Amino acid sequence: MCYIYEVMKKAVVLLSGGVDSAVTLYIAKQEYECHVLLFNYGQKAGKELNCAKKIAEEAGCEYKVIDISLPWKGSSLVDDSSKIPTGEASRGGEIPSTYVPSRNIIFLSFAASFAEAIGAEAVFIGAHQLDYSNYPDCRSEFFDSFQESLDQGTKMGTEGNGIKIATPVINKTKKEIVETGIDLGVPFEYTWSCYDGGDAPCGECESCMFRMKAFDEAGIKDPLL
Amino acid sequence: MCYIYEVMKKAVVLLSGGVDSAVTLYIAKQEYECHVLLFNYGQKAGKELNCAKKIAEEAGCEYKVIDISLPWKGSSLVDDSSKIPTGEASRGGEIPSTYVPSRNIIFLSFAASFAEAIGAEAVFIGAHQLDYSNYPDCRSEFFDSFQESLDQGTKMGTEGNGIKIATPVINKTKKEIVETGIDLGVPFEYTWSCYDGGDAPCGECESCMFRMKAFDEAGIKDPLL
Repeated sequence: MCYIYEVMKKAVVLLSGGVDSAVTLYIAKQEYECHVLLFNYGQKAGKELNCAKKIAEEAGCEYKVIDISLPWKGSSLVDDSSKIPTGEASRGGEIPSTYVPSRNIIFLSFAASFAEAIGAEAVFIGAHQLDYSNYPDCRSEFFDSFQESLDQGTKMGTEGNGIKIATPVINKTKKEIVETGIDLGVPFEYTWSCYDGGDAPCGECESCMFRMKAFDEAGIKDPLL
Repeated sequence: MCYIYEVMKKAVVLLSGGVDSAVTLYIAKQEYECHVLLFNYGQKAGKELNCAKKIAEEAGCEYKVIDISLPWKGSSLVDDSSKIPTGEASRGGEIPSTYVPSRNIIFLSFAASFAEAIGAEAVFIGAHQLDYSNYPDCRSEFFDSFQESLDQGTKMGTEGNGIKIATPVINKTKKEIVETGIDLGVPFEYTWSCYDGGDAPCGECESCMFRMKAFDEAGIKDPLL
């Protein structure tokens, strides 16, 4: 008798516990054996990290947590002395104070290292650039350049077998991301978007406002509200 | 009475404790107020880290240590189960087992974050590509692409005030690096190159062999031998 096993390709998925990365994980799961990477970087919303663990478990994926408490200031998301801006105050085309210096660059660097160590073909990140904050490290131009850095700077890359950065929601609206998540069975009840870590979402920070708008537009009730 | 203070530009310098990064620090010091970044990433030669601290102190620079013990394998420099190759066994044009997946990408990412947080103009790294191992992340092509990633992916970069990656020894031979260090007063007695962390350099690993050759060719006695 002969058994044929299909070996799934591996991917590393960056998961924050928010809507975008959760949907990205479920997109990646359709094609890859997913290895989830979580970060504890001193973010005020520590709750987000527990949500991410729960989502990874629900998705049936193993995860690793990287502790990288940065010994410098630079973002209202991690500085105790800095207030997270609310609602309209945080708009206006400028990069908001919630920008964490080089955060996605750091996250992708660890993901690339993990991918090389386990022989994963792709790194998935749930960035999107349409109706979100003006974070420079969420734009296609950044990911294109970082792809080149991985092609040039990793062993797999120089051997012509490079890690691909996958950004499947980058050009989706937040509404489309929520709709995709519903189709794929994402457990939105475990996602956390609020920049603060209270018992319930504050409903006032930029991230809460985007989330409310997205569920509203998709005509779906947010299980957290 | 009027005092004129000259404010030095700031730079972040990655320091490993080896010869190349020590010389790079002393080059950077000529023009910049240097903020040194050290990494504890589970390297076998923990001694290297103490040497780096000593060098930073000798240079009169403040330093920060980042702990990033990677929860995955992938290099003989950090795996207890993997033997560091010695001498000729480690040559031959291939990327050696001492390659740590994406190490310089991770280091540069933290350096960029630190630079953004303190408003530094440059990040110095002591990579060189001439007579060294075939590490992909020590080549000019990699640093050029990572420069683009910083220009695209950081707040300072998109504001046209980007952090510059400086690699002042990249095209120097190891002999020239030692000679430059002598000219600048680098305290070579505190540098550590051996991949193992014994009391004295093993004299057999690739890094020891490169160091011995460099001091020999420069006609200078290595203070460690």
